[in-house]
Amino acid sequence: MPEKKYLFTPGPTPVPPQVLAALAEPVLHHRGADFRVIYERCLGRLQEVYRTRGDVLLFTASGTAAMESVVANLCPGARSLVVSAGAFGERWEKIAAVHGAEIEPMRYEWGETPRADEVASRLAELGGADVVFLTQSETSTGVVADLQALAAAAKEHGAVVAVDAISSLGAVPLEMDAWGLDAVASGSQKALMTPPGLAMCAVSERAVAAAKPAHSFYLDWERTRAAQAKLDAPFTPATSLIVALDVALGIVLGEGLEAAFERHVRLGRACRAGVKAMGLELFSPDEDRSAVVTAIRAPDGIDSSDVVAGVRNHFGMTIANGQGHLKGKIFRIGHIGWFDIFDITAALAAVELVLAELGAAVDRGAAVTAALEAFEHESVT
Amino acid sequence: MPEKKYLFTPGPTPVPPQVLAALAEPVLHHRGADFRVIYERCLGRLQEVYRTRGDVLLFTASGTAAMESVVANLCPGARSLVVSAGAFGERWEKIAAVHGAEIEPMRYEWGETPRADEVASRLAELGGADVVFLTQSETSTGVVADLQALAAAAKEHGAVVAVDAISSLGAVPLEMDAWGLDAVASGSQKALMTPPGLAMCAVSERAVAAAKPAHSFYLDWERTRAAQAKLDAPFTPATSLIVALDVALGIVLGEGLEAAFERHVRLGRACRAGVKAMGLELFSPDEDRSAVVTAIRAPDGIDSSDVVAGVRNHFGMTIANGQGHLKGKIFRIGHIGWFDIFDITAALAAVELVLAELGAAVDRGAAVTAALEAFEHESVT
Repeated sequence: MPEKKYLFTPGPTPVPPQVLAALAEPVLHHRGADFRVIYERCLGRLQEVYRTRGDVLLFTASGTAAMESVVANLCPGARSLVVSAGAFGERWEKIAAVHGAEIEPMRYEWGETPRADEVASRLAELGGADVVFLTQSETSTGVVADLQALAAAAKEHGAVVAVDAISSLGAVPLEMDAWGLDAVASGSQKALMTPPGLAMCAVSERAVAAAKPAHSFYLDWERTRAAQAKLDAPFTPATSLIVALDVALGIVLGEGLEAAFERHVRLGRACRAGVKAMGLELFSPDEDRSAVVTAIRAPDGIDSSDVVAGVRNHFGMTIANGQGHLKGKIFRIGHIGWFDIFDITAALAAVELVLAELGAAVDRGAAVTAALEAFEHESVT
Repeated sequence: MPEKKYLFTPGPTPVPPQVLAALAEPVLHHRGADFRVIYERCLGRLQEVYRTRGDVLLFTASGTAAMESVVANLCPGARSLVVSAGAFGERWEKIAAVHGAEIEPMRYEWGETPRADEVASRLAELGGADVVFLTQSETSTGVVADLQALAAAAKEHGAVVAVDAISSLGAVPLEMDAWGLDAVASGSQKALMTPPGLAMCAVSERAVAAAKPAHSFYLDWERTRAAQAKLDAPFTPATSLIVALDVALGIVLGEGLEAAFERHVRLGRACRAGVKAMGLELFSPDEDRSAVVTAIRAPDGIDSSDVVAGVRNHFGMTIANGQGHLKGKIFRIGHIGWFDIFDITAALAAVELVLAELGAAVDRGAAVTAALEAFEHESVT
């Protein structure tokens, strides 16, 4: 029997069978009436997920391209503050460097949580900024920032607010319009439960007004907006992935965003409770906001790469290593999107077995029960 | 019963059921051992299709992004000649403009076939160029240029040769190494029989050496090459589409490229023979090289948009209108990739019915037989 496979990384994430089935349907032409019905509904559903009345621009690309679209359209001639506390926050800096954008980096240690008061102070020192770049969920560390407060600090100083919400959109609350966010990048392969290949960037009227002639042909907001206004796309889009995304968004919105957020909070709680019951130390903060990915320190003397390899080789389970200088030091269990409590207990059980075999001093047999209790499922009677 | 659907456009093209089935498989992680086996095979198969030993860079994007990657990596500081004879040739110019590249346009009328001797003369006048941009198959007009001769003229004048082969790769001969091509863009959704969402750019050693610091983060050749050398990708790739592309390339190479090229030649012949038998006038050249898409003039007094709408609304069949100033004047039947003679006869029969209903003076009943004869299928006994 072929081994069962488990995908427990913070992206790509597991895709529900209904969404996979949609991918197997015959390819539609992007200008056909049959596709346009789906396209319109999908764009509308994206607005619901972003909680916006504004445009959600859809790119056939990885999420990073949606981030680059923000820089390529907003940064020419702009002064920007980039707030970072991990690999993805620093990605904003790297993209800005390619475009020769004038940026001020505000770097936290990886694993720290950026603070709104500190961002406000820095902006006051700088005399404001045209754009402030933020990361809602720093996938490399498991930290989910208080985006609402950070955005408020940025707006107080007159900045356009750009956000990487690639691993957070649909998993934790994000209110594009109510929080006054201006450009929010995301991707299909996280909480939106669709294979990788689609990136989206929601843009406020303010962001559109602030946009310059883009430093990119493919990622030009204006060309994309103009096409989408006619239910068209400037370039042949990944029609099959859009059909699948539409099905996935239907599932997300059918569950309801609030229910999805609550489920993610409880999955995070369960994962952390299990990790602690095993006697391991959390790297990501032990708080409800850490609902996207749980980062765990490898026990003393254990290389986290061996944990990742162990669960993969023995149990067909993919979890994530640390990135950058955290490689070998932490491992990460994602719980974004199509996850239930038994995915968490499976991940914990496998990690426990592998750590025990590697000779780590873990408490055996406690993690699964602790996770089940922390999840607080509804009564089964 | 739901209406049968027919996709007869020059992209997206029909996808074989085996490829669709692969899309419905559970999502793989791009750094998992199971995916890497497929990824390596897929990259190797792309080299076979391109007939190159060099790198084929894979981007999660539409084909246009692969074109933009050429400009973003080669054009900073370069002097370029852009040869165009239609919408896609002119796209090179538009991309170059965004990147502030110094280009000399060499525009033919839409529908003309660029000539190698004229390109050579122009390059001689200009004292050479760093890069020459070419289009192998100009999808907007149906013209397939003599790429080998054009590339030779460009190389004679010392230029790096950049080619849009998006609708031609796998349909008509292209010899990356033997013809000395340097940067060749293509896409998944044409003769490679995969849904849209993957773009590729094959690069010669010369192109790599000529590359400058890229004007793009997402489309940076060096970052992509370095990642692929380790069987990695710089950003989460569209894993499901890559799994599907691998299956499709297996089918393409299983048939054999020479057999595929011959099939496309015969499909083109069949389509043209049917069109002529109906009494219609070809817009694309009546020659074997026109094997990708057949462009047909709408009869006097008929708007080609009505032909396109008619076959769609009455028969669930998608063919393509003219682009730009040719909209309403021509219509196009694609025969790229997963096509057989009965797709051609179906398209011809439907067009004939619609034109007759629109009141055009078409010869009834001749097209299908003419197409079957021109296809020269093997004996059925």
